[in-house]
Amino acid sequence: MYPNSLTKLIESLKMLPGVGQKTAERYALSLLDAADDDVARFAMALRDVKTKITTCAVCHNLSETNRCDICQDMRRDATTICVVASPKEVFSIEKTGMYNGVYHVLGGLISTQKGIMPQNLTIDALVQRSHDAHEIILALNATVEGEMTALYIAKRLEGVVNTTRLAFGLPIGGQLDYADDLTLQKAFEGRHKIQ
Amino acid sequence: MYPNSLTKLIESLKMLPGVGQKTAERYALSLLDAADDDVARFAMALRDVKTKITTCAVCHNLSETNRCDICQDMRRDATTICVVASPKEVFSIEKTGMYNGVYHVLGGLISTQKGIMPQNLTIDALVQRSHDAHEIILALNATVEGEMTALYIAKRLEGVVNTTRLAFGLPIGGQLDYADDLTLQKAFEGRHKIQ
Repeated sequence: MYPNSLTKLIESLKMLPGVGQKTAERYALSLLDAADDDVARFAMALRDVKTKITTCAVCHNLSETNRCDICQDMRRDATTICVVASPKEVFSIEKTGMYNGVYHVLGGLISTQKGIMPQNLTIDALVQRSHDAHEIILALNATVEGEMTALYIAKRLEGVVNTTRLAFGLPIGGQLDYADDLTLQKAFEGRHKIQ
Repeated sequence: MYPNSLTKLIESLKMLPGVGQKTAERYALSLLDAADDDVARFAMALRDVKTKITTCAVCHNLSETNRCDICQDMRRDATTICVVASPKEVFSIEKTGMYNGVYHVLGGLISTQKGIMPQNLTIDALVQRSHDAHEIILALNATVEGEMTALYIAKRLEGVVNTTRLAFGLPIGGQLDYADDLTLQKAFEGRHKIQ
């Protein structure tokens, strides 16, 4: 029904997460109206992203070089390693600007349901790196899978290095009566004296 | 913070309607994980859409040829013209499969707010086409702008051709207590005898 090339674009847009037929159509029609330059740049970016991006040999984060910018940065504390599930979290933490250590990207979380076992993640590489580190901060999701992965890694690093986890509690701006039971329970357990 | 090529892709994705930084990041990271072939096809579709698609010289619908498939189709009733605001609506109506006439795409709706005047739309071309037609069906949004455009066109076509509008009323599956006042009012006004 749509011209052939538009149908193809709609099909491609449907591979984006959460994008169905209607949204893909809306996106495609807006791209049709967009400036030629912008669309050409978009097409170029798509190609570049697949050809140029690889993973850092040290921390497994996304990088255009063999070692990522963070691992190459001499001003960063290489003895503090923050362990995250995916590159997305690295960027979330970097945005806060308050972390000066390095990272280790696991490439997922242990999940019996999805069949992701410890050997499918970069945990062995993490253990190897950990011998020279002072602290390993586990910045993993507060979910069953995140919990399971954290416990597994903590066990592997027992006696090797000091391992910590991020604090659980109420989110800033969060209202107590909207917090779920488990968050509230964790917030109680983690209560501390007002300075 | 992100590798350069990924940042560029995120910027490009942000030109899609309703897509902000977070969604663009999610899209970009999912494209990074997608198959090389799929992404190459996506890039190709983007280029094709800008180079191949033009508008039909007769109905102003999107087309890869000078006259669109619908205008070229001899089995369609060229004396019934359905007037829509944009190509999207042509595809919505075509999907129902119940319309056998041809179309006329206005390229928008008259809007004093957005500064869209009748001369910015393809209304003159419509009037010209209408002399050979039996019926002009105005399939425009049930909004102030749609209403205004419909009234304007109806006035221009007065004495030239029979002009009709789509029916207003409750949507099928719609619940009465969820319908807004105006819809309910229109549904009352348009009530008809049960056969």
